[in-house]
Amino acid sequence: MKIIIIGGVAAGAKTAAKSKRELPDSEVHIYTKDNYVSYSSCGMPYYIAGDFQDWQKLIVRSTEEFEKSGIHIHTRQQVMKILPADKKIAVKDLDKEDWYFVEYDKLVIATGAEAFIPDFAKSKFKNVFSLRTLDDGIAIREAMKNAKHITVVGGGYIAVELTEAFVKNKKNVTLIERAPYILSMFDEEISSLIQEYILANSDGLVKIINEDTVTELIGDENVKDVITSKGYGFDTDMVIISSGVKPTVDLASEAGILLGKTGAIKVNSRMETNIPDIYACGDCAEKINMISNTPVWVPLGSTANKEGRVAAINLSGGVEDFEGILGSAVLRYKGLNISRTGFTEKEGIKAGYDTVSVVITKRDKAGYMPEVQNVTLKLVADKRSHKLLGAQAIGCGDADKRVNTVAIGLLRGITVEELIDVDLTYSPPFSTSIDILISAAQILKSKLG
Amino acid sequence: MKIIIIGGVAAGAKTAAKSKRELPDSEVHIYTKDNYVSYSSCGMPYYIAGDFQDWQKLIVRSTEEFEKSGIHIHTRQQVMKILPADKKIAVKDLDKEDWYFVEYDKLVIATGAEAFIPDFAKSKFKNVFSLRTLDDGIAIREAMKNAKHITVVGGGYIAVELTEAFVKNKKNVTLIERAPYILSMFDEEISSLIQEYILANSDGLVKIINEDTVTELIGDENVKDVITSKGYGFDTDMVIISSGVKPTVDLASEAGILLGKTGAIKVNSRMETNIPDIYACGDCAEKINMISNTPVWVPLGSTANKEGRVAAINLSGGVEDFEGILGSAVLRYKGLNISRTGFTEKEGIKAGYDTVSVVITKRDKAGYMPEVQNVTLKLVADKRSHKLLGAQAIGCGDADKRVNTVAIGLLRGITVEELIDVDLTYSPPFSTSIDILISAAQILKSKLG
Repeated sequence: MKIIIIGGVAAGAKTAAKSKRELPDSEVHIYTKDNYVSYSSCGMPYYIAGDFQDWQKLIVRSTEEFEKSGIHIHTRQQVMKILPADKKIAVKDLDKEDWYFVEYDKLVIATGAEAFIPDFAKSKFKNVFSLRTLDDGIAIREAMKNAKHITVVGGGYIAVELTEAFVKNKKNVTLIERAPYILSMFDEEISSLIQEYILANSDGLVKIINEDTVTELIGDENVKDVITSKGYGFDTDMVIISSGVKPTVDLASEAGILLGKTGAIKVNSRMETNIPDIYACGDCAEKINMISNTPVWVPLGSTANKEGRVAAINLSGGVEDFEGILGSAVLRYKGLNISRTGFTEKEGIKAGYDTVSVVITKRDKAGYMPEVQNVTLKLVADKRSHKLLGAQAIGCGDADKRVNTVAIGLLRGITVEELIDVDLTYSPPFSTSIDILISAAQILKSKLG
Repeated sequence: MKIIIIGGVAAGAKTAAKSKRELPDSEVHIYTKDNYVSYSSCGMPYYIAGDFQDWQKLIVRSTEEFEKSGIHIHTRQQVMKILPADKKIAVKDLDKEDWYFVEYDKLVIATGAEAFIPDFAKSKFKNVFSLRTLDDGIAIREAMKNAKHITVVGGGYIAVELTEAFVKNKKNVTLIERAPYILSMFDEEISSLIQEYILANSDGLVKIINEDTVTELIGDENVKDVITSKGYGFDTDMVIISSGVKPTVDLASEAGILLGKTGAIKVNSRMETNIPDIYACGDCAEKINMISNTPVWVPLGSTANKEGRVAAINLSGGVEDFEGILGSAVLRYKGLNISRTGFTEKEGIKAGYDTVSVVITKRDKAGYMPEVQNVTLKLVADKRSHKLLGAQAIGCGDADKRVNTVAIGLLRGITVEELIDVDLTYSPPFSTSIDILISAAQILKSKLG
């Protein structure tokens, strides 16, 4: 059995390792155009920040370790074509001219996602970056050293994590976000508070421009000026393009592999595509939202790992299903923990629910504990069924733990009334005697009448 | 409507406040033999430790605040008898000789629990304490100042919290626990690790004697020596009796109110006793374990608060049920977070389940993050149904958050396989890409075959 995996970051590396464990006699190969495999993309902002000095720490499993366990790694080998009829792929060695063909019994597409590059950034400026590969991370850290002012285009998770990294290195940052607030995947009651926190806790180094977009970058080899659609212009030493990602699907699509309506590769719960013996997993694949049971595309590392495992079990002859996602995510800006699961209110309304919600702020620990902090929580529920739809939490305290507690409830369609009954742990260093989750559920219950 | 509440700490204070809100025209009275009402018992170890200096911070709601909202507080007024036929209570003013009678329309018993005092400690030594009331807390902090060596009899939650407080104040502590390890409400794989941590992280100030009991305290006004059943003897300056608590039920029992088989007051889900218009809530009341649906007695502050709320709604004419508990708890010993929910394995076996379990240790964050720590997690499941029965977690990292995530799953009878599907938040500062909960569930799944 010859297993070929295209892409070797999270989903690809996981599929390789798990396949070899499931079928020790199989031949497992990873092909990637990248210089590295099996690294933590999510850790790059912390490497750039200087939380640790050696980028090798981001490597989850080295090429040597893979080879030692019998998995063959082919870096700088770009797969150019998939030929399903012949069960072959065409590969180009990036250091040579010629292509070659490799046969497979099972093929796994784990090509991930790529940064969406707007037209204005398509010229080859030396000081314009986006963060996807380890090489990107290494280059950004190096370039940051000589920059005094950095422009971040976009205000999503990575944009905020990079802003934290730059501020930690005493850089001035101008962040430009199209929406009224950054982190627009949160409801505005929450994202406005996050934005306020960032502005108040960055030693005056951060400027955020909302409801505007970059239209032009001006410079020669390097960008020197940024112009926005509202006619605002400013000097900069470096630009980060972080205005969205898209699934890397051209290779699959050209081979006749169906895409879903989200634009990512359509897979079933066993990670099978429409073509026999071809699987897809990770950021290139479409997912199912477990609450609404509809296709979504939310590219996240934890999901990629799980999908890689499921793909490996199935291609090895086992049976395993990936049930879907809840859109759970967490990030940090300095002391602020920012977390969500399920639907925001705007997503819930868009999905057709008649929503009811509550936003409350409460202490995360007993008020007399020296380390007490505030948490702000938004709970969203469905008026008809009283089922919870989602939670968003932010706070210098333990915000994220409340969100994970809700996540497991969403899996089983827990109602507002049931959440009140949950016996959560209590001790003064860890929560108030009635945890904010329970308080919020009690208020929601009264709203539901 | 005249509502009389006996006891004013967690459940009593909550019932009073909520009843007055539900029925603003009612007359609400709290009678207590204690000097204070509405304080955080759970916070006393941190006051003793010196985490804050003013015990008044432990007061959740002052007598003045209660009176201002129309709730009458009667401290040092001990209820001597309940006369259900006449709907009256007999009260003794502790500063006077005579008794008096008070009528009620609705009566709430929130008498709490009391320390179990073994025979050897029944003589009136000045330096022997147990920790239940705020006066106890204030006295222990005062007495601790002049003690060089403190003996803690018992190894439960409060014993460990007080040991932390004493060590913080550089006291030598000898802890004597009947079981092979302290915190015997955890399985031994976990409690042995906790004991090891305490011994290794207390600057040599803590000595733990297991599988032994105190048989005699020797001294005149003050205890000077402690003798154990194995014949071990040592000097001490102060003794804490922390060898269990029992529900305070004599008053109720003498009035014909039924006790459950746990020895606590039997109540239904509306907190009603067997006698009309008499409710019980908090540590004096029996609870239902939500997994096995059997009566249990687990006296904890978070439960008391919830039960007080439910009692208030029902006695005010509303309808609200308290569904029960999971035995969720958390405590801290210095940097170690210690947490549990549901059944331990030994409890599961005792309750008749055919259990399967896993214990794993994993990082709580991405390995390259500077603040990374280890978490050890034990998951217990039922072999037949594959349902989770409980979780125990310890670690310098975020151990407790994993336990709360399981708690909400227990409420809905989540299976091991379903836990694998939970979409938990991931980001390097918060977890590994596959959280320890998911890893543990994956191992359990293979064990279940």
